[in-house]
Amino acid sequence: MKKRTRLILALDVTDRQEAMRVVSEVADHVDAVKVGYPAVLPLGMELVEEISGSADVICDFKVADIPNTNRLIVEEVFRRGASGVIVHGFMGTDSVRACVDAADGDVFVLAEASHPGGKEFTQPVADKLARLAVEAGASGIIAPATRPERVKELREIVGPLLILCPGVGTQGGSASDTILAGADYVIVGRSIYQAKDPKAEASRIVGEIGSVL
Amino acid sequence: MKKRTRLILALDVTDRQEAMRVVSEVADHVDAVKVGYPAVLPLGMELVEEISGSADVICDFKVADIPNTNRLIVEEVFRRGASGVIVHGFMGTDSVRACVDAADGDVFVLAEASHPGGKEFTQPVADKLARLAVEAGASGIIAPATRPERVKELREIVGPLLILCPGVGTQGGSASDTILAGADYVIVGRSIYQAKDPKAEASRIVGEIGSVL
Repeated sequence: MKKRTRLILALDVTDRQEAMRVVSEVADHVDAVKVGYPAVLPLGMELVEEISGSADVICDFKVADIPNTNRLIVEEVFRRGASGVIVHGFMGTDSVRACVDAADGDVFVLAEASHPGGKEFTQPVADKLARLAVEAGASGIIAPATRPERVKELREIVGPLLILCPGVGTQGGSASDTILAGADYVIVGRSIYQAKDPKAEASRIVGEIGSVL
Repeated sequence: MKKRTRLILALDVTDRQEAMRVVSEVADHVDAVKVGYPAVLPLGMELVEEISGSADVICDFKVADIPNTNRLIVEEVFRRGASGVIVHGFMGTDSVRACVDAADGDVFVLAEASHPGGKEFTQPVADKLARLAVEAGASGIIAPATRPERVKELREIVGPLLILCPGVGTQGGSASDTILAGADYVIVGRSIYQAKDPKAEASRIVGEIGSVL
């Protein structure tokens, strides 16, 4: 993934034609397209192959199993042409290292989740999960755009690793504030793919990011 | 899932014909077949549909996302004919409750993982995750057959909920010890599907379980 627009599209749609229409419209304005199981389970890993013909693909699979199972999942992700995968850290260093070893591209570790349930188990160990990402050799972490002060703090921990931030747009985070807080990429979903003109909306966000760089 | 043989097959094979051959041989000796992403990503959710014609299917997807994404994953699991799904608890009560609300069958929460990395984050909160399973209305929990003393302790916490235990066979756990410790089901993989005669091996384990009931 080349740092160009610093915008990643979260493509949470379950219709293949709709997915490919949005991708073709915004491909020039995003550095990658993030897809998850809600799209991949109904449409198959063929979706990853298809999108990867037009854009870098990050599989947001929240991989969270024992090392050998993680390895098998991550191998399949890159075999299908993805360029990155999002994994959990709470299954331990060996589980993340298995992902890094199996990856033919980037591994991003979720450091902090911002939904209410995130307060119970993940937020209390977010700094540890970020350190684990560094120690396990991951490419970067996922941190919430809705909490820019945390992006700043996590940047202190992960140093040169990439920070990708979902939560921009419908969920309330601001693209420019998130970049100013130290994020490398902002991840935007509904505001783009539900827009009447996805390309114009993506272009607007890229402009907003550019204005603070 | 009806408690009959108390044996669940973990079918971690990635060849569809091989998968269906094993299922047809052991279907009468198991209460369910557990499949995970290493099989489902290459073969598609059609695998779940196909197996569910011969046996109850538990999707071991370690679901671990925000509530809305969990809901979409779990809906797809049951739409394809599965009868159960395995989820993580560490994303919080709301994330597990979203799975329970979306499920048209059983939701099992992973309480404890026994690989080395499990010591870092999950084992210290295993009891809390088990309590969360009870509070969120799950059908049961996953606990390690390799640690029968923990199965006993977790039984005290979850009361009448089901306890399913992987780790029997190749990983060292004993089917009879696990049942004696309070498990409702033991999950066995390689010892069955890599056996020269999977049916005979399944039958042998069912006999071992029956001998202590």
